[in-house]
Amino acid sequence: MEIGIIGLGKMGANIASNLHDQGYAVRGMDTSPTVCEAIQAKGIPTFETLPLFLASFTNQRVIWLMLPAGEITEKIVLTLSEELDENDIVIEGGNSFYKDSIRRAELFSTKQLGYLDCGTSGGISGARNNACLMIGGNQETFQELEPLFRDLACQDGYLYTGENGSGHFLKMVHNGIEYGMMQAIGEGFQVVQKSDYDFDLTQVAKVWNHGSVIRSWLMELMEMQFKNDPELTEFSPVVAASGEAKWTVETALEMNLSVPVIALSLFARNLSQEPEPFSAKVVSALRNGFGGHDSHRAPVDRSI
Amino acid sequence: MEIGIIGLGKMGANIASNLHDQGYAVRGMDTSPTVCEAIQAKGIPTFETLPLFLASFTNQRVIWLMLPAGEITEKIVLTLSEELDENDIVIEGGNSFYKDSIRRAELFSTKQLGYLDCGTSGGISGARNNACLMIGGNQETFQELEPLFRDLACQDGYLYTGENGSGHFLKMVHNGIEYGMMQAIGEGFQVVQKSDYDFDLTQVAKVWNHGSVIRSWLMELMEMQFKNDPELTEFSPVVAASGEAKWTVETALEMNLSVPVIALSLFARNLSQEPEPFSAKVVSALRNGFGGHDSHRAPVDRSI
Repeated sequence: MEIGIIGLGKMGANIASNLHDQGYAVRGMDTSPTVCEAIQAKGIPTFETLPLFLASFTNQRVIWLMLPAGEITEKIVLTLSEELDENDIVIEGGNSFYKDSIRRAELFSTKQLGYLDCGTSGGISGARNNACLMIGGNQETFQELEPLFRDLACQDGYLYTGENGSGHFLKMVHNGIEYGMMQAIGEGFQVVQKSDYDFDLTQVAKVWNHGSVIRSWLMELMEMQFKNDPELTEFSPVVAASGEAKWTVETALEMNLSVPVIALSLFARNLSQEPEPFSAKVVSALRNGFGGHDSHRAPVDRSI
Repeated sequence: MEIGIIGLGKMGANIASNLHDQGYAVRGMDTSPTVCEAIQAKGIPTFETLPLFLASFTNQRVIWLMLPAGEITEKIVLTLSEELDENDIVIEGGNSFYKDSIRRAELFSTKQLGYLDCGTSGGISGARNNACLMIGGNQETFQELEPLFRDLACQDGYLYTGENGSGHFLKMVHNGIEYGMMQAIGEGFQVVQKSDYDFDLTQVAKVWNHGSVIRSWLMELMEMQFKNDPELTEFSPVVAASGEAKWTVETALEMNLSVPVIALSLFARNLSQEPEPFSAKVVSALRNGFGGHDSHRAPVDRSI
């Protein structure tokens, strides 16, 4: 099977290496020469332009997209829908909104092109060794590529989830859950760290990973991070949010369901990105207004 | 080492069996004859009264308390503080509030009695085979009993956490995190289950347990539960809350810290226990008041 990876960032590069190691005829495409060079050094041919990349296939093209969701993915998908040949298949492995995936799959379908939406979890190490894949789309197309998914995923780590969109839908909810779990872990460790006891957070994470109810891969990651940096001095309290938790909340709203913890975990990240939350300033202004409380700028001590 | 377990419920019984299997001279005490009989059948002597239980030791008593937190534990601890002999040691393995443990340990200390507060996680299966233990108290007392903890816990599954109270403090926060993780998982599965896609929840939980970021013991439990009961028809939507998440929130308030997701997860359980939440009825009354909305009793359809 000839397979090409478009987007050789951390995830894409590791998927390329993973498949290359397993004997697949892999090629990569990325517009960054630096990124291409690094992959080329591993013996994987790379191309900086789409025409060269597409011309490098001698047979049916199987193309794994591993790009940031949104405009970049949209643009390349539309271009591919024009440039590919019948029976070529695109696996969209990014974190796209499932409704975009449904729309794109329909476009591909009208042109006799294959389209699978593949939610990809497990982080960078997963992509390199043992990914977790949730795959939506035409069942025959899935079956045709099942050996590829089996080789890429860890054992039992791939699932055909149903029609197009279902793979990304499931990945969306997975990430929503992830936000909630991470926020709960964050809140807990803050209480532990600020307590009067002299806890060793590495040891705490370690014991929680051995036999406790909250043992989990996320807790294993924290054990490793605390070991390297017990005070997390290298880490920012400003937390980015990609789209999936937002879409989980939006989807829940559309379904009239209640996902308060997932929503709050997202809001906590949003708030962390505001250096001077206006909401807090409004509350300060009101306190000052009715109670004469001194709520003016100085001192702004956010260390407590 | 002669060890006695007071409280032969699910956790206590399994700890007794675990230690008995490993060759400890275990005896048990429980006021329920039925419970005692079941343990006795495993070859473990049991007693229904404290005097008989205490008289059964020929040497230093090591007593593991595995009782519901609160009044029951308080009562037995106070009695033991009167009845035990110097150098006897109590390991309080229940889910007590850490400040109670500090107070009780101080009482024991004045009488030359040992007292360790031991947060015990891992559920019933953990107690039977591989517990996770967080142990606070006098370090020498801990060291004296370390072989016991090592035998009871899974590998790396016990930690000396510092002075008295620290074991139960850590268990309290552990459970707070647990509430948040569970609520996030619950919300996520609700979105998956109510979606238009035809997801097999057992398969979803299974794939999420193989390589995904949210793989965890809790997700493994859900895989098992969905396998046995895909619609969770046997389970109640009314969720009980023992004290630990509440104490985590109270402790955070005392420390002026913010634990919104843990608090909200607790509130979600509290709300689930109210068959007719008055807060919701107030909102209905207000909607009716200003908008003339029909918000009267019938139909109360909570199925959606």
